[in-house]
Formats: sequence, C-alpha cells, structure tokens
Amino acid sequence: MPHAYETDGAAIYAESFATIRAEADLARFTPEEEPVVVRMIHAAGLVGLERDVEFSAGMAEAARAALQAGAPILCDARMVSEGITRPRLPADNAVICTLHDPKVPEMAKAMGNTRSAAALELWRPHLAGAVVAIGNAPTALFHLLNMLEDPACPRPAAIIGCPVGFVGAAESKAALMADLPAPALIVRGRLGGSAITVAAVNALASRKE
Amino acid sequence: MPHAYETDGAAIYAESFATIRAEADLARFTPEEEPVVVRMIHAAGLVGLERDVEFSAGMAEAARAALQAGAPILCDARMVSEGITRPRLPADNAVICTLHDPKVPEMAKAMGNTRSAAALELWRPHLAGAVVAIGNAPTALFHLLNMLEDPACPRPAAIIGCPVGFVGAAESKAALMADLPAPALIVRGRLGGSAITVAAVNALASRKE
Repeated sequence: MPHAYETDGAAIYAESFATIRAEADLARFTPEEEPVVVRMIHAAGLVGLERDVEFSAGMAEAARAALQAGAPILCDARMVSEGITRPRLPADNAVICTLHDPKVPEMAKAMGNTRSAAALELWRPHLAGAVVAIGNAPTALFHLLNMLEDPACPRPAAIIGCPVGFVGAAESKAALMADLPAPALIVRGRLGGSAITVAAVNALASRKE
Repeated sequence: MPHAYETDGAAIYAESFATIRAEADLARFTPEEEPVVVRMIHAAGLVGLERDVEFSAGMAEAARAALQAGAPILCDARMVSEGITRPRLPADNAVICTLHDPKVPEMAKAMGNTRSAAALELWRPHLAGAVVAIGNAPTALFHLLNMLEDPACPRPAAIIGCPVGFVGAAESKAALMADLPAPALIVRGRLGGSAITVAAVNALASRKE
C-alpha cells in the first residue's frame, strides 16, 4: 500500500510557515525581520531557534537593498553557496565561494590558519558592498573581523554570521555583534550552520513565500 | 586589537568531539554507531540530538561495508552532495544528485509530485547496493519508500533518512523505520537536514576523527 503524503510544494511551504507562525514567538522582530526568522526556523526544523536570533538595527533593510542593487554573496562553504536558490536572487547576483580555490591550502599553511579562514583573503576584490554569508566556520568569521579592523579593508553591506559548533562559534558571533563592522545577523550560541544561513539569504533575497 | 582564537583545524575537531562526548548521553549506541552520532551532533551544534537518533540493527556496519565496496552515494539535494568530504570516501565512491537534471521539472509535473521526489526516478540505475542520503525533502523519502514497495525495484544497502521540517518529515522517517526496506538511520521528529545527513555519511565513510 503506497504511502499517501502532501506532494504539492507550495502547499508544503504554506503549511510549514503557518505552523512556525503559530508556535514560535516572533513578536520582537520587525516586519522586515520576521520572514527571515521564519525561514531560518523552517530550515532548522526547530521552533525555539528564534530566541537566539539577533539582528543589528537595519540589517534586514541593508541586506535587501544591497541584493537589489546587485551585491555579490560571499559564502564560506559550498554547502552555503549551493543552497542559495538562484531564481530568488533579485539581480542575478554572483554567488562566490573561494574555499576550493587551488591557492587556498598553501595560503592556509602560510597564515597558520584554517582553509576556511585563508579563503577569505580571496574575497577582498569582491568585499565592497557585498552580502557575507558565513554558515560553517568560526575561524572564517573571526578572520573576517580581523580583516575589517584595517580601515583600508573594503566594507561589506551586511554580514550573516551563523557558524555552528562547539569551539569558537558562540565567541565569534558575540565578537561580530560587539565589533559590528557592518549590519549583522547572528544566531547566538552553538546553533547555526549552512542550512540556517542559506535560509536567511533566501529570505532576504525575495519576499516570496 | 585582533581577535585571538584557535586556528588549528585538528585541535578544533578534537576539542569539539571531546565536548560532545562529555555532554551527550551516548551510552545506548554501539561502538560502530557512536562516532556517527558524535559527528551528527557536531554538525547540528546541538547536544540532545542523540535522543532522536535511531539506527536499525546493523545499519552502521552495512553502510560502512557498502562504502568500502565502492557503493555510490545517492543524495536528494546539492547541499548534501556538496558537503560530503571526498578524501574520506574509501573507494573514490560516486556521489550522485539528480535533482538538477533537466528532465526533472517535466517528470515532476507528470507525476504530480515535487522535483525532489521526481529526481529519485533517475536513481534506479544506481540504486542496487547504494547508500542513500536524504537530508532535505520528506517527499523524496516517501517516494523512495513507495518505489521500494515494488519487489522489482533494486535495493539500496543502507538508507540515511534525515529530512527536516514541519510537514511530512516526522511521518516519512517513522514510515522508513516501520517499512525498513533496507538498514536505516533516522533522526526522529522535525530535526534533520543536510548538515546532519552529510555528517552521518562522512562518519560512516571513514573512522578518522
């Protein structure tokens, strides 16, 4: 006997988002932020995530405006760059992940850092006005913050900083909100990851649900 | 003042896994299963995930043996296929994701199902003895179960069934464990996703931590 299940993608999205809006406490988010948080909860399958989500003032507006204006999206991992839904991008924005550039392993060795961090050095030509999406490596977010301590380093328009895990994730995200070199969105603590980061990008790229 | 942080990848892994082993309750898992659960918790950044992880008897052994023997890995989403760490694969195993095959949108329309489900029809030539990794779409897992109700459909060696979300995720994973058409690993309930699924594949592919 075949299993019967909902096979209509639009209906699945609608029911999922309705469930999230019924269960999650979204009252503290602005109308610009709320659909972003809903999509992040959706990607994680986790109502309660909203308690750890934090936007700096105006971040959602800044990210949306940058994407509308054609900003590239700089990703720390291929799981992030591959997850971004291209038809949602408002200006056929470039999606860039430099992690697998053949220069990176040698750069990492020379820097005494991870490949995830070293790969960000290759972001420099794209960084001015970009939307940054870090969903994997705390070392990448820490290295970005250190790069941006140099006033000569180009500024991104917005930073989604959602690395995940047990070493450096909470600390790097707290440092991002303390430094605030650009408008930022984080998930405080250990939670984060590529799916949550992708969801934020996809929600900021288009208001379509 | 630049931020100071751990920049040694191996040290980050070791400290992360030690934290997980100190905090999570892993006593009910076999020695074959335990490192898989540790890596899944690591990917999610979530101690407590272990309460929802369920292996059918012998699943870890079956998946490891299949990968050693060169089994292809069939993935429902590019975020899964892109996340698998190629150097961990024991036999240069093929990693296959058919979701973006140009035939899929028309197939989905004809089947009245999602593209994620329709894409599985293109798995048939690869399915015998494969390791399946479903980390996104409940409709893909339900469709696989329905395909496998036909005794003529080739059998995979093992199924990692970890779709995520609010509609069909919990139900499809419960159905997988009830039908058990092949040894299976799930995360019960809403949690799951590409990162957790990738972590399970990476742990089953190699014992290296």
